[in-house]
Order: sequence, then C-alpha cells, then structure tokens
Amino acid sequence: MKLTVLGVGSASPQVDKNPSAFLLSIDNEYILIDCGEGTQYRLLENSIKVSRIKTICISHLHGDHYFGLIGLLSSFNLKGRRESITLIGPKGLLEILDIQFAAANTTLNYKLNFILNRNTEGEVLLDRSRFKIESIPLVHRVQSTGFLVTEKEGDRHIQAHKLPENFPIPFYNKLKDGKDVIDPLTKVAYKAAELTKRGTPKKVFAYCSDTAYYPEIVPIAKGANLMYHEATFLNDLEERAEMTQHSTALQAARIAKASEVKKLLLGHLSSRYKSSDEHISEAKESFENVEMAIEGAVYDII
Amino acid sequence: MKLTVLGVGSASPQVDKNPSAFLLSIDNEYILIDCGEGTQYRLLENSIKVSRIKTICISHLHGDHYFGLIGLLSSFNLKGRRESITLIGPKGLLEILDIQFAAANTTLNYKLNFILNRNTEGEVLLDRSRFKIESIPLVHRVQSTGFLVTEKEGDRHIQAHKLPENFPIPFYNKLKDGKDVIDPLTKVAYKAAELTKRGTPKKVFAYCSDTAYYPEIVPIAKGANLMYHEATFLNDLEERAEMTQHSTALQAARIAKASEVKKLLLGHLSSRYKSSDEHISEAKESFENVEMAIEGAVYDII
Repeated sequence: MKLTVLGVGSASPQVDKNPSAFLLSIDNEYILIDCGEGTQYRLLENSIKVSRIKTICISHLHGDHYFGLIGLLSSFNLKGRRESITLIGPKGLLEILDIQFAAANTTLNYKLNFILNRNTEGEVLLDRSRFKIESIPLVHRVQSTGFLVTEKEGDRHIQAHKLPENFPIPFYNKLKDGKDVIDPLTKVAYKAAELTKRGTPKKVFAYCSDTAYYPEIVPIAKGANLMYHEATFLNDLEERAEMTQHSTALQAARIAKASEVKKLLLGHLSSRYKSSDEHISEAKESFENVEMAIEGAVYDII
Repeated sequence: MKLTVLGVGSASPQVDKNPSAFLLSIDNEYILIDCGEGTQYRLLENSIKVSRIKTICISHLHGDHYFGLIGLLSSFNLKGRRESITLIGPKGLLEILDIQFAAANTTLNYKLNFILNRNTEGEVLLDRSRFKIESIPLVHRVQSTGFLVTEKEGDRHIQAHKLPENFPIPFYNKLKDGKDVIDPLTKVAYKAAELTKRGTPKKVFAYCSDTAYYPEIVPIAKGANLMYHEATFLNDLEERAEMTQHSTALQAARIAKASEVKKLLLGHLSSRYKSSDEHISEAKESFENVEMAIEGAVYDII
C-alpha cells in the first residue's frame, strides 16, 4: 500500500498548497480520500491513471475536502468511463452532486454506488477482497469522518522449488489459501505450512482530518502503520483549535503515540504558518517518527 | 478596460490549460466572467486583489465554466469579505450554491445579489455608473449566455489652464458632466464645449462562449472593440461542432467579421488539438486581426 499526497492545504487557498486529496494504491487499484478543488488536475500532473480509481471517500462537506469531486466525476463521464465508482460520504453529498448533474443535463455512463456514512461509530463501510475501509468518527463543526484503510494479508507465497513438476493448478490455489492438498490418485499429501510462506502482512492507514483533539480515535487506529492527522495549529493556539474544532501538532502527536502507530504524517496547516518546522519540533515532543506530508510525495506504508 | 485571461481550456481537463475564466478590469473594479474549477488559485497566482471583484457573470452550467464559483465565494467568506457581490447567472445556479453553503453551515458575511438571466433576448443585466452588462443569447446544449460589457464614455476632461483660479468645485463637476455654468454673482458664462474635452471613449467587450455558430450574435456585438469567441473545433469537424453545439475557428471568424469587431480572441479548443496554429490560419481566411487567448496574458481593450 502506498500513499500519494495530492493536496495538504487547509481552507484558505494558498498559492503553494492544494486542498486536501490523498491517493492510496493497493495493487493496481486506487482509493481517493478527499477531493479538494483542482484534484483532477493534480491527478493529471502526477500522471495517475484515473481509471484505476474505484473508490472515493469524502470526510466531510467543507469545501477544501470535496469541491473537486463534481469536476472529477464529470470528467470521468466525458472520458467515457463505464466502470462503477463507489463513493463513501456524508448525508447531503449525493444531493449536491445530483443537482449539478441535472443542471448540465448529464446522465452518468457509469454507476455511482453511494455508501452513506452516518458517522455513528467505527464501522466497516466497504469490505473488498484486498482491503476494507472502516470509519473513524471525528469531531468537527460539521459531521466529519476519518477512514481506516486495511490492506488485507496477501495470499501465501508458494515455494515452487519444493513442488513436483506439473503440479496441478487447482492444488496450487488451495495451497495459496493455506489449505492442505491430498492427490486423489497418488494419495500424496501436500502440506500448506511446509510448501508456502505467509503472504504480505496486512497494512493499515488511518486518515484523521478534520478533527478536534479526540482520543476516541485511539482504539480504532491502534497499531496503524501510518497515520495522517491534521495539525492546523501550534499548541499556543490550543484554544483557537478547540473553538474551530481543529487540532494542534502536539495533539496530533499525542493521538499517534497513544495509538502506537508506526509513523505520523501531519498536514492541513493554517495558512498563517509559512514554515512547518515548528509543527514538527512540537510534535516530536510526544512522538518521534513524524514528518510533514509533502504534496507530490509517495509514501510506502510499511 | 483590460482583459486578463485566467483559463481558456475546454471541458476535458488538460495539464497545461485551465477551464474558462476571464477577468475584466474597469478602473479599479473587476468583473469575473466564468469561473471554472481552480479559478481562485489562478487569481492568487496572478496576484489579483479579489476584493476588487464586484461582479461575477456565469455563462452556463457546464462545469468547465462554473465549478470554481463555490470555492471562490466560500473563500471570500473565510477571508472576512463584507462587500456585496453581484452574481449574474442562469436558473439553477443559486440553488447549487445554497445547497453547498447549507451543507457546510456557512452563513455569508456579505450580500450575494443574484441577477437571474433568462436568456430570452439581448437585455441590460446590470447598469452601473462606469459600465453596463448586456446579455448575448447563445445556442448550446444547455441555456448559455454571452456578455456584452460596455465601459461607458468617461467624464469630460477639464482644460484647467482655461479656468480662473479658485474656480468653485461644484462648477467643475457640472462642466465635467458637459453642462454650461453661469456664475450667479458675476454672470460670467462658462461653456463646457470650450473648457472641456471629451472623456475616454466607450469600449465594448463581447464574450461568446459556449455556442454553436449563431449569427444572431452579430447585431448585438456590432462594432465591439474586442470579441472572445469559442472555437472548439476546426472546420473539418463542422458537423461535430453542430452536434455538440460548439463553433469552429472559421465560424468564430465569420461572426467577428460580420460584427465588425476590432479584434478577435479565440479559445476553448478541444483537447484533441495540441497546437492552435491551424485555428489561427483557418480564422484568418475570414478575419485578419485574430489571436489565441493566452492564459496569464492581459489584453488592453482599445
């Protein structure tokens, strides 16, 4: 699982930042998390094959997290997309899209499967063969939901050199699933535990934006390989963070520490900060393995 | 009057083009015509004082002409704008904005004066002291309206050296308005025709996008100083232009020629064209003073 950062700005537009947009790739499939204005142009600039985006998750209905969605979905249609899209988002999102499609006389060529996220508790929103997406209820001025994306443990790896030549394919697949096989003709038993190795272990990414300091995140995100947490302010503006229901760098680090995640990425800094140095040093007071999320960068989730 | 081109692309997103957005400046006031996705970022990049935007005109509800509007209006609010905005647009636009403001619990700090454009005929949509905006009904797959913006003739210039010292200010203003003045004490007559020169002559800009070939534009745009006309296709795709209700470069040039405009700018080229050379040479068959609209360029309207 890899994370490509497309936009890490906050609500006030800035000339050197883009609003929130993050692309997770799992094998050859993409999950887009948030879609601020201009995201479709960021995808183009990063030469990302948009046909591989199968799932889009929208955290909340503040514009810097979703104003680019209608443009992206409209462009999918213009380009002749046929493959369905699963869209996970809060109440109201579908109506906002529909009124705009109707105004343009647009009929989608593809199916838009909408999954309504009620944000009541951490729950499985989508369960696919290679990954699942669970909600992380957050606290913000409007309903806001983080996403816990788990890349499931991969198939077991066959130790081909330990198998006879012309080993039948159906036996192969059983072994990959971890099941033992007995050849009905020869009665020879093939043991999965001996002939295969464990597949790629599961990986977990926790996306937490936008939110006030909210320790309820901790049990849900426990042990994640990578956490992205908003850090709009520094801790001297803790009161302002609480008032606007955002977090400080120190608060984000405390959540990461308590969650025992492997690595923390910060973003969504208020436009008042010209450098992110202080956010990093403040966060390191509580959690060492922290970096600023950089637009255009790709992070291996390990 | 000056025109700054912010975006001149067509519906399919391109990495080196932005969707439609044009900024007219008249003295220190700006009129924004169309507002494709990302326009607020183009304004930032071009260091344009957005507080000077007082009027926004939206031609039609295809996304490449208005998906940036909600972001721009939201950012005005975030930045604490108090001054009202006049928004001219088609039926449905206000509802699209309102549903998104409601989803974000946004209450605007400024007044949004919406002028509904019914597109029934060329009519005065806005009449201000320095300019007026009239509609140019166009033909497209959804209601589409061009805009004729007229910078009115400026105040007459006083020939100060011909006036006595301590000439009273109220007399000054009357002369600027072209009215004669008689001093009630001395009975001396001051003639505007002798003491003033004509102010800056009126200037007219005609914006025609998106539209099929539509000669009804001609009488409305007659004699404009500058015309922007979409030229999505070359004339070998005239049938496709008609089907999609767009224009070819040759058709745009014919409209410009029949309208006797001084200069023509082309834009909105289909993403299939990697160069605009053929559009220009095709247009020159009918109208010599033609250029491609270049993003970031500023055109004096003379």
